[in-house]
Amino acid sequence: MRVGFVGLGIMGKPMARNLLRAGYPVTVHNRSRPPVEELVAEGATDGGSPQGVAEQSEVVLTMLPDTPDVEHVTFGPRGLVEGLRPGSVLVDMSTISPVATRFIAARLRERGVEMLDAPVSGGQRGAEEGTLSIMVGGDPQTFERLRPLFQVLGKNVVHVGPVGAGQVCKACNQVVVALTLQAVAEALVLAERNGVDPVRVRQALLGGFAGSRILEVHGQRMLEGNYQPGFRARLHHKDLRIALETGRSAGVPMLGTALVHELLGAVVARGWGDLDHSALARLVGELAGGAG
Amino acid sequence: MRVGFVGLGIMGKPMARNLLRAGYPVTVHNRSRPPVEELVAEGATDGGSPQGVAEQSEVVLTMLPDTPDVEHVTFGPRGLVEGLRPGSVLVDMSTISPVATRFIAARLRERGVEMLDAPVSGGQRGAEEGTLSIMVGGDPQTFERLRPLFQVLGKNVVHVGPVGAGQVCKACNQVVVALTLQAVAEALVLAERNGVDPVRVRQALLGGFAGSRILEVHGQRMLEGNYQPGFRARLHHKDLRIALETGRSAGVPMLGTALVHELLGAVVARGWGDLDHSALARLVGELAGGAG
Amino acid sequence: MRVGFVGLGIMGKPMARNLLRAGYPVTVHNRSRPPVEELVAEGATDGGSPQGVAEQSEVVLTMLPDTPDVEHVTFGPRGLVEGLRPGSVLVDMSTISPVATRFIAARLRERGVEMLDAPVSGGQRGAEEGTLSIMVGGDPQTFERLRPLFQVLGKNVVHVGPVGAGQVCKACNQVVVALTLQAVAEALVLAERNGVDPVRVRQALLGGFAGSRILEVHGQRMLEGNYQPGFRARLHHKDLRIALETGRSAGVPMLGTALVHELLGAVVARGWGDLDHSALARLVGELAGGAG
Amino acid sequence: MRVGFVGLGIMGKPMARNLLRAGYPVTVHNRSRPPVEELVAEGATDGGSPQGVAEQSEVVLTMLPDTPDVEHVTFGPRGLVEGLRPGSVLVDMSTISPVATRFIAARLRERGVEMLDAPVSGGQRGAEEGTLSIMVGGDPQTFERLRPLFQVLGKNVVHVGPVGAGQVCKACNQVVVALTLQAVAEALVLAERNGVDPVRVRQALLGGFAGSRILEVHGQRMLEGNYQPGFRARLHHKDLRIALETGRSAGVPMLGTALVHELLGAVVARGWGDLDHSALARLVGELAGGAG
Repeated sequence: MRVGFVGLGIMGKPMARNLLRAGYPVTVHNRSRPPVEELVAEGATDGGSPQGVAEQSEVVLTMLPDTPDVEHVTFGPRGLVEGLRPGSVLVDMSTISPVATRFIAARLRERGVEMLDAPVSGGQRGAEEGTLSIMVGGDPQTFERLRPLFQVLGKNVVHVGPVGAGQVCKACNQVVVALTLQAVAEALVLAERNGVDPVRVRQALLGGFAGSRILEVHGQRMLEGNYQPGFRARLHHKDLRIALETGRSAGVPMLGTALVHELLGAVVARGWGDLDHSALARLVGELAGGAG
Repeated sequence: MRVGFVGLGIMGKPMARNLLRAGYPVTVHNRSRPPVEELVAEGATDGGSPQGVAEQSEVVLTMLPDTPDVEHVTFGPRGLVEGLRPGSVLVDMSTISPVATRFIAARLRERGVEMLDAPVSGGQRGAEEGTLSIMVGGDPQTFERLRPLFQVLGKNVVHVGPVGAGQVCKACNQVVVALTLQAVAEALVLAERNGVDPVRVRQALLGGFAGSRILEVHGQRMLEGNYQPGFRARLHHKDLRIALETGRSAGVPMLGTALVHELLGAVVARGWGDLDHSALARLVGELAGGAG
Repeated sequence: MRVGFVGLGIMGKPMARNLLRAGYPVTVHNRSRPPVEELVAEGATDGGSPQGVAEQSEVVLTMLPDTPDVEHVTFGPRGLVEGLRPGSVLVDMSTISPVATRFIAARLRERGVEMLDAPVSGGQRGAEEGTLSIMVGGDPQTFERLRPLFQVLGKNVVHVGPVGAGQVCKACNQVVVALTLQAVAEALVLAERNGVDPVRVRQALLGGFAGSRILEVHGQRMLEGNYQPGFRARLHHKDLRIALETGRSAGVPMLGTALVHELLGAVVARGWGDLDHSALARLVGELAGGAG
Repeated sequence: MRVGFVGLGIMGKPMARNLLRAGYPVTVHNRSRPPVEELVAEGATDGGSPQGVAEQSEVVLTMLPDTPDVEHVTFGPRGLVEGLRPGSVLVDMSTISPVATRFIAARLRERGVEMLDAPVSGGQRGAEEGTLSIMVGGDPQTFERLRPLFQVLGKNVVHVGPVGAGQVCKACNQVVVALTLQAVAEALVLAERNGVDPVRVRQALLGGFAGSRILEVHGQRMLEGNYQPGFRARLHHKDLRIALETGRSAGVPMLGTALVHELLGAVVARGWGDLDHSALARLVGELAGGAG
């Protein structure tokens, strides 16, 4: 299978290299020249433009910064659509808008070109080591056909739904990572400003529940809508009050904690104080207009 | 070593039972009778009151709902202080205020009684299986002397600092758990309202970075103040913008995500957009009056 | 001065009527016919299309829902640019993006057409009574030339800076109104749930420092539970999105605005988008466990 | 009517002076001597202690920093209860917890002493000029009997409900003031960072719907960067803590208030606690990457 690759940045270059090393013929393009020359020296072909890449490929992978870049590379002058043949596939591995993704896919479908969105997580190291997580949206048969390709690039490859679903999934991933980061940030500052060694706090938390299993255990509860405790929401509410008081006495503003404290207060106020604290998902669902 | 145990609720009863099974002589007290009788049938002694428990014990463990309960059991009528001898130890395993803990410890010290605070995480199951995480504050030698006791109750036992430090550490734990819960809640609702199966999203995220390693990897970066990317803050800022737009188009309010999006905006505005996103900890530190 | 008016909605129709009554010859256009026929019966001319309006006018006013509407009316088929002559002026009184405004102005300037942005506040009543506040951006001389026109429509007319500045100012206005609404909502629910008569609390606060017209007007609506608009929650939601985008493009984190934006998103998600924005109090009441 | 006054700080001293000037015989006490001597020189009597004040008064007014101060002055050594006779009245004009207020009132009632809570707004200037807003909770007949006294101190005197209701109302006031401040801070920084003159934006908004006295007075302080108090940020921080506790005890989630509470916490943590609370604009400016 002849593969094209457009976008040879921090992520794209090692990904294209892994495809080369796995034996795929790879045609590449990048806005700046050096990474192209580097990969050509390792056996890749220089496509000269997105159009040139598309003309020589059955599958084209893109790894670009943002939505306008993908639109430009696909539909701009000497863009991919000028070279993609009916039956070929565009796999966009950038992190971009799900809405724009669906729009691009619809325009390509008019020309007989299939599109998968396949954003990744795992960073530069995952790209280099071929251990990325890949969240794929699009036609299931096309996904199965390209699975060997994905398995060169990552080790956790999941088909999550129709085109755009990969980007939705990536958005979910970024939400979880961001809030968890903020949580760890607030916790470690809270410890340090209370005269407690944050190194030991991190060690203690790693061994316990905050280390890892919330997504696993509580995510499952949220999915099932099964809020039998578990840990009662009103107790978690109380514990966060203590955390906030501890922060206040040490001069630590805790914006995220104060927010979730108020949300748990809302969970309690709605009469769900004796449900499991994962009933936060019921509150979020209700705020989103659902039955809760 | 003769052990006392006051507070035989969902957590306390299985903990006391585990001490009995490990061969410790245990004297117990509880406000209501049934759990006392249950444990007496298994070999425990009924202390009759906190004072009675204290009179027959070298170490007394308390597992109570909130700060006023610990104060009442310790200093109230027929309280622990009436029975505790100089050289004995009070180990409070409740989750209560660190400030109140330090105050109680100081009053006990006047009478020659040592105090450890040792709150736990791991829930009812951890209590039953003896797999709790235990975060201990207090005199290190006293901690070492009681370590065998703790190891009956939990498997991740960490001494984190002077008295009160255990409660500070527990507060940190609850912050991390709460914000991560909110994150998972927002992510799963976001997926579902965008027509993407949240079961698959959870599966995809479990395999990737959001599953577990933020505390491990980014926590370490925050501790070192080493914000070499990694993943640049300005890219995470962009990704959250996409997440918020995706939520808006599906009618999903995302309070936590919007908050962290603004905070990452502040990270970028301070000129740290090319640092690792764990620079959120630098922002939190600066908001707390530090150098950032 | 011959005046054109495109967009005869709840705001636009009474504004155009006030211009007619002040003696200006007015050519109008609207997507739906009835308001056109109504104004023609009062002396207006039917332009037939934006282009038709532009051909018969020295100054064209637009009053449209959102950014894409202004772009479509200006540059779409039979759009304003097909009819605007060099030296004529487009005054956009809609509430839209400052960034898009500057872009539209630049394209018009290439054709010798001047643009002012002149968003308003004051609602339907202000439009009918000619008492709007008008925040104007653009060339000062053009503003001075059109001042008599603005004074027919509003009584507080302020030139705030170059083109786009009017929209920035409107974004500021919407931020202040939204957070103050949220403040009043939280305060009145707080009083009521503590057993204190919110009618008296409003009265007490009106006499003091917190007194503002929002407390007076919207506080009364909240107390009556009468959420007939007024200003629809979904429009305020949109305006805060614009404010947040404006902040993002300028590197201004807006924590309060982002919070209230999400809360208005929740108001919309619960199906209350066409209620008055003071329905924030219904959301707060529901979060506090009440019927909403 | 013989009046006692305990607490001669920035607010209390001019209030006591106004009572003297109105012809009331006033007995005073203060922890530090100078304000006592100042008022004795103007005709007041030195009570020597809270007890001494109470022994010579039918009505005692207190104006103290926080809840523990009121508790100490009332029930501590040589406290008010040692001197208050049955039928006398304690009027606490401090801003303290509504819950603590109800508790103090209950203890006084056992001794036949009536209590009104009567917190104020209007600041030092309102205290000096006798133009405070006074929000009164307690027995309506007692309120009517003392109305002439209140009318010496303020011009907007409202009875809002039973004892504690005045403090609830004051909490509402502080919520509205805080969120409106945050609103004005965000709006002015938003304007300035978008290259729009914030002086004109304030002028434009003053004429419109957002117009309030906060925009007028504090907006001007923010524009000048003149944060001389005024009302100190750390006191407003404290008042919002009370408001949040009041909300928590009544099951009212207060997302906006919690947010601004944390932001005021950040203002305090940065060492600006003794600046005027409009220093929120300095924080917003710093979050936006400026010098603060």
